[in-house]
Amino acid sequence: MKQICVVYNPRIPQAAPLAEEVARWLEAKKLKVSLGSTEEPSPKPPVKDCDLLLVLGGDGSILRTAHAAAAHQAPILGVNLGRVGFLAEARPENWQDVVSSVLDGRHWVEERMMLRVTVRRGSKVVAQEDALNDAVVGRGTQARIIRLRVEIDGQPMTEYAVDGIVGATATGSTAYALAAGGPILSPEARSIVLVPVAPHLCAPWPLVLAEGSRILIAPTDGREAALTVDGDRPFELSPSDSVLVETSPLTTRFARVQEKEYFHRTLMARLVARRPD
Amino acid sequence: MKQICVVYNPRIPQAAPLAEEVARWLEAKKLKVSLGSTEEPSPKPPVKDCDLLLVLGGDGSILRTAHAAAAHQAPILGVNLGRVGFLAEARPENWQDVVSSVLDGRHWVEERMMLRVTVRRGSKVVAQEDALNDAVVGRGTQARIIRLRVEIDGQPMTEYAVDGIVGATATGSTAYALAAGGPILSPEARSIVLVPVAPHLCAPWPLVLAEGSRILIAPTDGREAALTVDGDRPFELSPSDSVLVETSPLTTRFARVQEKEYFHRTLMARLVARRPD
Amino acid sequence: MKQICVVYNPRIPQAAPLAEEVARWLEAKKLKVSLGSTEEPSPKPPVKDCDLLLVLGGDGSILRTAHAAAAHQAPILGVNLGRVGFLAEARPENWQDVVSSVLDGRHWVEERMMLRVTVRRGSKVVAQEDALNDAVVGRGTQARIIRLRVEIDGQPMTEYAVDGIVGATATGSTAYALAAGGPILSPEARSIVLVPVAPHLCAPWPLVLAEGSRILIAPTDGREAALTVDGDRPFELSPSDSVLVETSPLTTRFARVQEKEYFHRTLMARLVARRPD
Amino acid sequence: MKQICVVYNPRIPQAAPLAEEVARWLEAKKLKVSLGSTEEPSPKPPVKDCDLLLVLGGDGSILRTAHAAAAHQAPILGVNLGRVGFLAEARPENWQDVVSSVLDGRHWVEERMMLRVTVRRGSKVVAQEDALNDAVVGRGTQARIIRLRVEIDGQPMTEYAVDGIVGATATGSTAYALAAGGPILSPEARSIVLVPVAPHLCAPWPLVLAEGSRILIAPTDGREAALTVDGDRPFELSPSDSVLVETSPLTTRFARVQEKEYFHRTLMARLVARRPD
Repeated sequence: MKQICVVYNPRIPQAAPLAEEVARWLEAKKLKVSLGSTEEPSPKPPVKDCDLLLVLGGDGSILRTAHAAAAHQAPILGVNLGRVGFLAEARPENWQDVVSSVLDGRHWVEERMMLRVTVRRGSKVVAQEDALNDAVVGRGTQARIIRLRVEIDGQPMTEYAVDGIVGATATGSTAYALAAGGPILSPEARSIVLVPVAPHLCAPWPLVLAEGSRILIAPTDGREAALTVDGDRPFELSPSDSVLVETSPLTTRFARVQEKEYFHRTLMARLVARRPD
Repeated sequence: MKQICVVYNPRIPQAAPLAEEVARWLEAKKLKVSLGSTEEPSPKPPVKDCDLLLVLGGDGSILRTAHAAAAHQAPILGVNLGRVGFLAEARPENWQDVVSSVLDGRHWVEERMMLRVTVRRGSKVVAQEDALNDAVVGRGTQARIIRLRVEIDGQPMTEYAVDGIVGATATGSTAYALAAGGPILSPEARSIVLVPVAPHLCAPWPLVLAEGSRILIAPTDGREAALTVDGDRPFELSPSDSVLVETSPLTTRFARVQEKEYFHRTLMARLVARRPD
Repeated sequence: MKQICVVYNPRIPQAAPLAEEVARWLEAKKLKVSLGSTEEPSPKPPVKDCDLLLVLGGDGSILRTAHAAAAHQAPILGVNLGRVGFLAEARPENWQDVVSSVLDGRHWVEERMMLRVTVRRGSKVVAQEDALNDAVVGRGTQARIIRLRVEIDGQPMTEYAVDGIVGATATGSTAYALAAGGPILSPEARSIVLVPVAPHLCAPWPLVLAEGSRILIAPTDGREAALTVDGDRPFELSPSDSVLVETSPLTTRFARVQEKEYFHRTLMARLVARRPD
Repeated sequence: MKQICVVYNPRIPQAAPLAEEVARWLEAKKLKVSLGSTEEPSPKPPVKDCDLLLVLGGDGSILRTAHAAAAHQAPILGVNLGRVGFLAEARPENWQDVVSSVLDGRHWVEERMMLRVTVRRGSKVVAQEDALNDAVVGRGTQARIIRLRVEIDGQPMTEYAVDGIVGATATGSTAYALAAGGPILSPEARSIVLVPVAPHLCAPWPLVLAEGSRILIAPTDGREAALTVDGDRPFELSPSDSVLVETSPLTTRFARVQEKEYFHRTLMARLVARRPD
């Protein structure tokens, strides 16, 4: 490894000073360092030429970096400055040990599936994005149920009367999909989870679909609806829009130093630690 | 009974002609009839001087009429033109029989509890409304969890990380609260149901609170939040707003001709008939 | 107060010595003390002549004492020796303060509704018991769904395909009914909660029924079924048996020194403290 | 195909006459036919030498046949005589068409993953079975929560306080696991679903584990517990027993004539058709 990109969330007070400290520590090891921020209008992290992306922030910061990094090969290493996160590998107390291990090559790379989310308006593609966690087709501000038609692999399945439908990866299965009643998937699973949010007298069951499934979600009642990808700004849907969710050709890569069975061993602690009270 | 108000939903094609037919039928019986519409800018139904409110529409039309009627004594009689409804008493096929029974006094009046919903901004009341079904404090368009602090009877209970929180009456327990995972209450129950929508690693349990409970719901994270009462237009909340949900002094009264045990006998049929597929 | 009954759970090692200590402390105050155990074949607690029942144990010990005490007037005061309990009022560290307050009359009595559970075989009553928490009509040892027909107030409601059906009081709403997906009721609620356990493609919704409701539960498929009241030994049902669940004329009375709003203020702490991990 | 085994469920009145009819029809086509019953003490179906197993019954009959057939290659073709089944391919009205298609080779073979379930008592294996649907470690007859420790891949995960834990295949995800709140998996998924039944204040989330995962479930509280495999007779567990659930080397093979996307197209109809009311 020659060049390391240090990305930090400027909204977290301790992130910028830590980024400085990490950068000096890396430069002392004769590594080239570039700095980036997860927030606009700061410059996007220059991920292209980096061998490792060190993210100082919470799961949200890692999600944003993942979007920038997915088209490249550099793995992400998260130093958790938020609540106990699902994606980070190090904490502020032990980042030097963890980063040292990675610089010495004593790590493995965990590859996580992403979703490709495409919005079609008639025959035209009007938006396309990749998701590490999830794509949600949901209601607008009014707390009122909308109707969404779902097709799987070109076959009509059912119409939902819901707040929204979440299409999630294994990675996203501990995020919004979990709140909606979905299952937790092992991180290596290349499945797609489909979970209705607040299903009103319609099919309430979460579905786990095989990699390669093509899920089409389309509003049918003309009400205000929006697409939210990885919790970012919503994209307003027109009544004739449809959203296709499928496996992305891109992946997110994480540098890990924990043993490969880390997920289930630490799962309960992570779930409980994130509780707000 | 001397004066009957016939309220119809102009968005349902069969409603206006049926309203005409009903009005002529009532006038032939020497009753005074006034017409009203559930949609603005049509004149609001002149509920003040009526002895009975005949509503031609779905549950939504009955909800709107209930708001106009709550301060008065006239009971509501719904003729269901929507999907199988929870609130209506008659169908287009049998309205003459049902209305005749009511005109002859062979009916009983079912009184349903309502909620009083008050929005405070600092020490100022900025909005107040009564709900027959529910009050929802929820996220904006972005499908992203918000944090809501809840106090019961002046005692802090917990902080939720959710899409929203529903406060519902027994009447509303078969509407949005049900979709969020809440229980179904017998219509005569004067309890308040509190249901978190998509709770993320926080208390997921629906609560059933006694009449007289005072529930305060306040956003704590500065994110966009809105209050929706009975599924109507959302009221945008400022970061310092709090919403108080409590028993209303008003009630909604329904004219019934079915036997008093009708609710559980017909419950399953109503729940299944409303399924969209 | 003149005579106090000290009831302890002999399976908890610290309970017997604490019972001795409590008895001596009470006798030093010139009170008459009688000792009882929650386990057979030890003598049942002599509740008849007591003014207060001091229970040293967990929620299970309090449940057993409640059965013995329901026909009498003496309130129960629990000193919690189990996990954080829902029913106890004192802890081993503060029992002297709490009991002193009660002896001085600085307490209030909380009255909790009970259920009357009656098993009919043809026209004959073959068993009858009162429940403070719940009555469960469930499958036998085989993890296989059974069919149960439910009538409410003499009206057929639906047939369930389930592991079992729980009928619970407000008190029982934080016990087995909660595990089955039911809501949490305020302790003063005199409602009956009906919750299906593992409903297989049948009505999954918990119901909250008014005091006075009569719920009949009857197996319809001839499979092995059993009735369990308050978690005690199961009563095997014959294929022609039916179980009636209704409000009991008896109640359980608790001596409380906490403020009347204690339930929701301490609810989350109690729910989290009971988690096994 | 030369030899066909016709297996029928003698408890379904129409099954035996239909088996006769099918046998004559097959013999008229010069095929060798052997008859078998799903119930003991009737002879087990002679699956060893057959090229196709025609099962006349419901999903339960197919499950029993799958156990006999798993070690062999012959695919199963179900003619559904029960409620609308998830496993059958033909109905009494169209069996001739479907069987003709299969005899002509116009079919495909769907391979479903099975679980291997092993009970260890100390270092000794005391039972081992393969499951097409599920393995349930659950409580005895008493409707009382038991404590179960779960390890994944040799790592302790958590302790559950539950009625039971279901380990299910994709095939079993529409059976008991669904009733317990689990997700529905696409039939080709080679995942293992783990669902707690009636979790009491412990981790309530269904888990979807990768093929190859080793799940150990062990009672920890000495209460009566039992293992039920595919809904069959329970196996009583001793306090020191542990149950290992993992991918089986065996599979169940089904002959299919529907298009490969049949599962999601027909899913909702199957789920609704199985509703008891």
